[in-house]
Amino acid sequence: MTITVVGTVAFDAIETPFGKVDRCIGGSATYFSVAASFFSRVNLVAVVGEDFTDDDASIFAGRDIDLEGLERVAGQKSFFWSGEYGFDLNVAKTRDTQLNVFAGFHPQLTETQRRAPVIFLANAEPSLQLATLEQCESPRIVALDTMNLWIATARDALTEVFKRVDLVIINDAEVRQYTEQSNVIKGARQILALGVKTLVIKRGEYGVLMMTRDKLFAAPAYPLEQVFDPTGAGDTFAGGFLGYLAAQPEATDQAFRRAIIFGSTLASFTVEKFSLDRLREITIEDVRARYREFKALTHFEDFEV
Amino acid sequence: MTITVVGTVAFDAIETPFGKVDRCIGGSATYFSVAASFFSRVNLVAVVGEDFTDDDASIFAGRDIDLEGLERVAGQKSFFWSGEYGFDLNVAKTRDTQLNVFAGFHPQLTETQRRAPVIFLANAEPSLQLATLEQCESPRIVALDTMNLWIATARDALTEVFKRVDLVIINDAEVRQYTEQSNVIKGARQILALGVKTLVIKRGEYGVLMMTRDKLFAAPAYPLEQVFDPTGAGDTFAGGFLGYLAAQPEATDQAFRRAIIFGSTLASFTVEKFSLDRLREITIEDVRARYREFKALTHFEDFEV
Repeated sequence: MTITVVGTVAFDAIETPFGKVDRCIGGSATYFSVAASFFSRVNLVAVVGEDFTDDDASIFAGRDIDLEGLERVAGQKSFFWSGEYGFDLNVAKTRDTQLNVFAGFHPQLTETQRRAPVIFLANAEPSLQLATLEQCESPRIVALDTMNLWIATARDALTEVFKRVDLVIINDAEVRQYTEQSNVIKGARQILALGVKTLVIKRGEYGVLMMTRDKLFAAPAYPLEQVFDPTGAGDTFAGGFLGYLAAQPEATDQAFRRAIIFGSTLASFTVEKFSLDRLREITIEDVRARYREFKALTHFEDFEV
Repeated sequence: MTITVVGTVAFDAIETPFGKVDRCIGGSATYFSVAASFFSRVNLVAVVGEDFTDDDASIFAGRDIDLEGLERVAGQKSFFWSGEYGFDLNVAKTRDTQLNVFAGFHPQLTETQRRAPVIFLANAEPSLQLATLEQCESPRIVALDTMNLWIATARDALTEVFKRVDLVIINDAEVRQYTEQSNVIKGARQILALGVKTLVIKRGEYGVLMMTRDKLFAAPAYPLEQVFDPTGAGDTFAGGFLGYLAAQPEATDQAFRRAIIFGSTLASFTVEKFSLDRLREITIEDVRARYREFKALTHFEDFEV
């Protein structure tokens, strides 16, 4: 099944304890599309400025990504984010955010984009997510990501979006913030009670917890000795997860679980280098090999009674 | 195989967001022994004051715990710890620590205690752990726990103990503190390089990571909607882990993995009530049932190529 993603294609400036880059390609929809395209076709919907070159666009080349929805606006600059990570790589400190061309982004989906059976609303103001969702024609799965900013500043609108999606991908601090519950499981139940079918809770270096009304699945993150740059890990995860899921004949509990592992696998590659440098290099065989390592990492036997 | 544990039997005063207790039984060796005794025989070596009543000792009754090494000293008070937990239950804030009778504790092991094939050195000053270890007669497995205080104040002595044990049970913040590495996997390799065969890294609500030179195992914590009081979770984990391991015919990689899950299972019960109130109630059947839930929580299938 095809996925339509609406999000950012952007430039980042990043400093980590291991290096520094002044301009590299980033953005939620970029990481998402590349990761998802390992498994499914993706319609990319985003806007860039005239600073976005053909060379920049080469990241999408040779992949199953439809770029019809990638609008380039003359006389404007692309979304720009600058951030740094310290000793604790789990926390990004934002130095600067320039919305630029993204400030006037009001996506109008084409018929193809509207009819995609899977929709991913990348992190954005909830009103923009809602405006996108209203254009879609009975998708089978709608998923969204969000962030602390919208929980703090657009809580009611976010609640409206939560009520209309199937799947929420969120981190554990955001679950706590939104629900004002210290216990993440209890908080997750509150979000599920809004009508969300599946909650995928990202826990950074500790992995992922997936919850439905009656099922729980916990997966660790792949243990890396060198996390070089965590930027894009969450969107890569979402891409691998939804990309794999969209390619399955049935969305069974086991398909969701495998999707979580494929999402985690792709995210573990992203953080090994700056930007999409590592995602660019790997093949589906690398992804499958690391999936098998995940199995070895987590497998334990039944005890003998 | 029998386990000898040297640690504290103590009284705690605890306040959590859910309740308060002014005097309850606690101590590393208490939690450890009760948990381990679900699977193996335990020789308990600890010291208490005259405030420790027969009623307090009833926690050990009817279990496979040898109390010959539980010394009661007249005219003195038992070790006392007072702490509180706030919104974030992962972090205990110590209000008061009174060593009392523990200040003069110089354990002299009996022949039976010395000859136990499995030794657990609960968290204590490294010099005390070393003095205990020197009395042991060629144990098959020696394990230790430690804390941030000893890393900061007795680092060299702690390194000496690390060099002489097989198994270190430690939390992730302590790995970072001891090795000055932000990356826990990299830090863990440094500790393994000292000669430690197996490192068990506790990550609180996120579970456990077990590392040897060539193998990794990650297990989540059991997701609880109500964590009532985290006190004793680490020592209960160690007890369940070593207790199960000591009962296995062979210490294979899979036996270690099952031991991690049994340790996590027992710890998940401990935090459901104050003190050992929950551990007191449960049977081995409850433990086995939750082990099976762990399996359901973490299991995922191979993908089809």
